[in-house]
Amino acid sequence: MAKEITPRSEDYSQWYLDIVQKARLADNSPVRGCMVIKPHGFGLWEKMRDQLDFMFKETGHVNAYFPLFIPKSFLSKEAAHVEGFAKECAVVTHYRLKNDPNGGGVVVDPEAKLEEELIVRPTSETIIWDTYRNWIQSYRDLPLLINQWANVVRWEMRTRPFLRTAEFLWQEGHTAHASAEEAVEETLKILDVYATFAEEWMAMPVIKGIKTPNERFAGADETYCIEALMQDGKALQAGTSHFLGQNFAKAFDVQFLNKENQQEYVWATSWGVSTRLIGGLIMTHSDDDGLVLPPRLAPIQVVIVPIPKPSDELTVVANKIAADLKAKGIRVKIDNDDQNRPGFKFAEYEMIGIPVRLGLGQRDIAAGQIEVARRDTKEKNSAALDTIADYVENLLEEIQQNLFNRAKAYRDEHITRVDTWDEFVQTLEEKGGFISAHWDGTTETEEEVKTLTKATIRCIPVDAPEEDGKCVRTGKPSKRRVLFAKSY
Amino acid sequence: MAKEITPRSEDYSQWYLDIVQKARLADNSPVRGCMVIKPHGFGLWEKMRDQLDFMFKETGHVNAYFPLFIPKSFLSKEAAHVEGFAKECAVVTHYRLKNDPNGGGVVVDPEAKLEEELIVRPTSETIIWDTYRNWIQSYRDLPLLINQWANVVRWEMRTRPFLRTAEFLWQEGHTAHASAEEAVEETLKILDVYATFAEEWMAMPVIKGIKTPNERFAGADETYCIEALMQDGKALQAGTSHFLGQNFAKAFDVQFLNKENQQEYVWATSWGVSTRLIGGLIMTHSDDDGLVLPPRLAPIQVVIVPIPKPSDELTVVANKIAADLKAKGIRVKIDNDDQNRPGFKFAEYEMIGIPVRLGLGQRDIAAGQIEVARRDTKEKNSAALDTIADYVENLLEEIQQNLFNRAKAYRDEHITRVDTWDEFVQTLEEKGGFISAHWDGTTETEEEVKTLTKATIRCIPVDAPEEDGKCVRTGKPSKRRVLFAKSY
Repeated sequence: MAKEITPRSEDYSQWYLDIVQKARLADNSPVRGCMVIKPHGFGLWEKMRDQLDFMFKETGHVNAYFPLFIPKSFLSKEAAHVEGFAKECAVVTHYRLKNDPNGGGVVVDPEAKLEEELIVRPTSETIIWDTYRNWIQSYRDLPLLINQWANVVRWEMRTRPFLRTAEFLWQEGHTAHASAEEAVEETLKILDVYATFAEEWMAMPVIKGIKTPNERFAGADETYCIEALMQDGKALQAGTSHFLGQNFAKAFDVQFLNKENQQEYVWATSWGVSTRLIGGLIMTHSDDDGLVLPPRLAPIQVVIVPIPKPSDELTVVANKIAADLKAKGIRVKIDNDDQNRPGFKFAEYEMIGIPVRLGLGQRDIAAGQIEVARRDTKEKNSAALDTIADYVENLLEEIQQNLFNRAKAYRDEHITRVDTWDEFVQTLEEKGGFISAHWDGTTETEEEVKTLTKATIRCIPVDAPEEDGKCVRTGKPSKRRVLFAKSY
Repeated sequence: MAKEITPRSEDYSQWYLDIVQKARLADNSPVRGCMVIKPHGFGLWEKMRDQLDFMFKETGHVNAYFPLFIPKSFLSKEAAHVEGFAKECAVVTHYRLKNDPNGGGVVVDPEAKLEEELIVRPTSETIIWDTYRNWIQSYRDLPLLINQWANVVRWEMRTRPFLRTAEFLWQEGHTAHASAEEAVEETLKILDVYATFAEEWMAMPVIKGIKTPNERFAGADETYCIEALMQDGKALQAGTSHFLGQNFAKAFDVQFLNKENQQEYVWATSWGVSTRLIGGLIMTHSDDDGLVLPPRLAPIQVVIVPIPKPSDELTVVANKIAADLKAKGIRVKIDNDDQNRPGFKFAEYEMIGIPVRLGLGQRDIAAGQIEVARRDTKEKNSAALDTIADYVENLLEEIQQNLFNRAKAYRDEHITRVDTWDEFVQTLEEKGGFISAHWDGTTETEEEVKTLTKATIRCIPVDAPEEDGKCVRTGKPSKRRVLFAKSY
């Protein structure tokens, strides 16, 4: 089975599609650009969602749910927002079908035309701020710390499963505050939540940074992001947290009576991560044999395979091990299939990315041993049967850490400091990754670099030190380095 | 605040809307028929969803996610289905907006018309069975036990929050089986899951039954349901589980190689419950002072109110009690607000339905006591401070049980056996509730009764004994009683 995957060295893009398909994460659908998330892929998303949801609640947020549809006129209310989001979107114009008078199915009923078209939400700032107007009167109603788990639709022309789909699942936080300082603090707090989640749960190292004005969210005063590096040297924007200033409050007239008894526009943030993270997870850890999952997010962490096939005796031992592992909160599956041979099963479990595989053979058991295979390094070991639960528990932690270290080593090796344009072009072509270079701060230069090389400024790292330098493209003075890369 | 609620005796329908508003469950939205589910309402839905999800997984189901959009032609493929669902729905006809050439916002770009219109899913049988065609080849791929948590849209003309909204949240299970027997077994298994959830978690007694052909799901061979009774004597269909036969398999050509090595169409079920359950919960337990929630589903189960207001000393005691309650898995909030008076707070917590309120006063503490108020009966007691956690734990169970018993007593009193038409009409008008009566088994009679009285056959109870009788309307022979009622 593993042979069916295109090697990364041959065609990274096809390798990615193969993994999505063969690891049973997602399937194409008959609707252009929309995918079906299969049970294994959705199980992974559930684990990610549950942990993020826990972290949002720990930081004081609550969930709510706002309508799928946005009246068309709402999109025009915030000047920058409409430019960014009112273009490629799904538009509902009618609310009824009727039987085709000429036979053959149903047709849109021309009588059932909406007075105002509805847009399937591409993001929900507009409808949420229209609602907040009724919820906020005084500073005592603030802050409002609300998150929503939802589906959104953006009519992308070129789609790829998880990375860019017309419909995707995400969470969008929308908070309201009494001061700019508090809103900025919230924006940064969430950036930290995202970075912690990416690094400690996804084992995916990220750089926290600020987007250039050109790459800002449409309607934001400042966009913060976490940027990760994929195995092919391209960057992936993995999450964004926006300080929206008073832009949406002004567009939707949301004012509050402040402590000084004066009317003031409310300060806002919004932030989101999506099923795109699954694409990032795949491209951070997986290999030519299939998916590799960090143990903390793996829907199944351990599989026990009786060798050569299930028997009453092996089942007793397998059940005992499974019970011990479950008692430690470890997610375990026993393979009771007696049709396929171990070799086939091993390849299958490697393909779908189960972190640890226990091979349970009669002779091993007699010797008080069990075979342990780890997915990340493909190493096999024998471990003592009577302490196997402790061994596996430690091993899962070790794998989690190893995946992070491996990804971080790769990422760090692929941040190259560059001071000349020739070096810039050469590094981008030959090595890829992030290029740390000076930039003169203008959108013109940013656009020019993009036109010449396809690289964009991924972010200005939040911890970038001040440093006098010259723009790598124009030679004009610069105060700090930014990170360029080609990106997804 | 409680005074703002219209009493049930005066106007039940307005009372319901008042509860939804004042208990902060939902809000109207600018989109016709769509509601905003507020944090308190969504917290309740999360508890319901999590428990149902747990029960689905315990019975072997996994989650997946299918597209929001359904190609128009799919709806026509199953003859009965199209009649039921292809009428009032949201139709996407375009995929782009553009700046209005005459200024003033955005307009639909006529160039961006879809070749085939997309329907926002009213239910997902069609797109899921189109997908299953690729997933099922042999009996070894079966059963497929998949559930989806999703939003759906049905363009209802008359809407009421939770009970009937254009967009609502639900789960829809879609399973595929190798035999009719196994599919029927699945249908009944889920019916039991729904009934258990309704009774043990929502404390809402339900009757399990079979729908008449007239009330069947469009495309089902048999529809099972759970029916509950609201306080105003009207029934509420709380969940349905459908045996779909081979209808969708035939419509989407989903065949499998059976054990006898022959091609056979796959057998199907589908089943769902929605945010409508929140409407049922409200109308089963709540009163003129606000929402009443069963403890197992209450987002906050216990609130501790320092009296007359928070102080360092009271906070120490409150924290200790809260820690003890949390250690027992009880969801507790400490009210640290020092602006409002206890009377105001008490009314507020009654309004939003917190099951148990602890009033913590200096004098009580000195006497080793604490005041305990329960929401269901409005009774107040003193309890010993040193064993308060145990006391509250037991009390929450008692409230859960009391709510169920109370609702069941009301429901049982409102099932009336009736044998004449006059009695039928009189009972319906004066008493309401379920009427257990004989019916001749024809759709004509069912429709006639509905036209004359607005009552419909809610179900044929699964445990209805065979009993010779005469139809309450036509006098024709009947083999068993069915349940009639007016309904939501």
